[in-house]
Amino acid sequence: MSSETEVLAAQVELLLARVDELESRAAIRDLVSDYCIGFDRHDWDRFIGIWHVDAVWAIGDPFGDFVGHEGIREAVFEVLYPAWRETNHLATNLRIEFSDADHAVGRCDVDCMGAASDGVVQMVGASYTDTFERRGGIWKIARRDVQIHYFNPLPGVEMSPP
Amino acid sequence: MSSETEVLAAQVELLLARVDELESRAAIRDLVSDYCIGFDRHDWDRFIGIWHVDAVWAIGDPFGDFVGHEGIREAVFEVLYPAWRETNHLATNLRIEFSDADHAVGRCDVDCMGAASDGVVQMVGASYTDTFERRGGIWKIARRDVQIHYFNPLPGVEMSPP
Amino acid sequence: MSSETEVLAAQVELLLARVDELESRAAIRDLVSDYCIGFDRHDWDRFIGIWHVDAVWAIGDPFGDFVGHEGIREAVFEVLYPAWRETNHLATNLRIEFSDADHAVGRCDVDCMGAASDGVVQMVGASYTDTFERRGGIWKIARRDVQIHYFNPLPGVEMSPP
Repeated sequence: MSSETEVLAAQVELLLARVDELESRAAIRDLVSDYCIGFDRHDWDRFIGIWHVDAVWAIGDPFGDFVGHEGIREAVFEVLYPAWRETNHLATNLRIEFSDADHAVGRCDVDCMGAASDGVVQMVGASYTDTFERRGGIWKIARRDVQIHYFNPLPGVEMSPP
Repeated sequence: MSSETEVLAAQVELLLARVDELESRAAIRDLVSDYCIGFDRHDWDRFIGIWHVDAVWAIGDPFGDFVGHEGIREAVFEVLYPAWRETNHLATNLRIEFSDADHAVGRCDVDCMGAASDGVVQMVGASYTDTFERRGGIWKIARRDVQIHYFNPLPGVEMSPP
Repeated sequence: MSSETEVLAAQVELLLARVDELESRAAIRDLVSDYCIGFDRHDWDRFIGIWHVDAVWAIGDPFGDFVGHEGIREAVFEVLYPAWRETNHLATNLRIEFSDADHAVGRCDVDCMGAASDGVVQMVGASYTDTFERRGGIWKIARRDVQIHYFNPLPGVEMSPP
């Protein structure tokens, strides 16, 4: 190999790693969006697809912690959907840090306009801290810790469809 | 061409396509932002610049559907601005899927704090489903379908400038 | 150098610049997120880390303008934290335009659910216009202009921890 070709080969090798990380950022951002979309629109395939089979969803008080796809199914169908008649999550402020090509931690903030099962409209604010892992070429959430900042009931407000 | 050079040429070819898609993601994200910014700040050039000339803006009830730049102008100046004294859209949860290098579908969620023309402050939640096309090298929206989730009047709240 | 190698070298050179810009977009987005996270969670190192040492934070009425790390420290600890018992910023609609590889302007919108020091819960909407500069390889904010759209007190709402 000529020395020019060697230099090029080294540059391309580095570019491949950098483009891979940029694509990983996009894939991880999609997971964060799919959590909101899947949960709010009751799209179970989208929602469960973001979690590794052994994922931990540590919601904490007042809901509890849930492990694995079965635990997550229980959290959604036996705890959260019965508690919330409607939710609308907005995820922002996503920060991702890679420890290597297949492992990253992240955090984001969400705001949610929703109606509890008793009809009371609330705005809920929370932060999610995530462990993301790429296994078999697919990025998913290995662990999500929820820190809820507030449940603010809005007196006199009703969810009003168009 | 040497075999090393052939391998490099193939890697570079693939990298070009991957970087193009990452840049397309950024360009599409800008369209979604410019919709909010252009509409809320009454920046017409920014707003109309996101739509292909034959674009369809299917807002649905209670506003209607609008076709082409003339239809979109009508929607903004004859329907929406008369109905809303002020709007502040926040777009999040953007998901983009490419079918080829020049075609993509997307969806996002918005929350909007606004005041109707009668002064009533409302929070509005909606999802947008988009068809994005790159024509002549420029990504724009070919079709946007609006699904409104709620118009929530906030009793006793007034838009209060600083 | 063979002509094939020359073509490849030119392609790689261009790819390096394009990937650099994509990485700069991610770095700038992180600054915008860290502003919210650092301020809301009282994480001073994260917050001050987004500003160049001579940065200008032009908040304007009713808070004022602040210059340099000392001015920014004063704004946070002597003006804003005393005025706000709690804040929860959501940044969206980020638009970035590069003038060269190391200089960019941006703008984004934020919504903030917070409680003033008197306990009154407010939703605040604002736009930030930013000058971003990369110095010594690190992107930071050189200037942020704040345009506040509304401070909306929410009658009867209280910040309600879980």
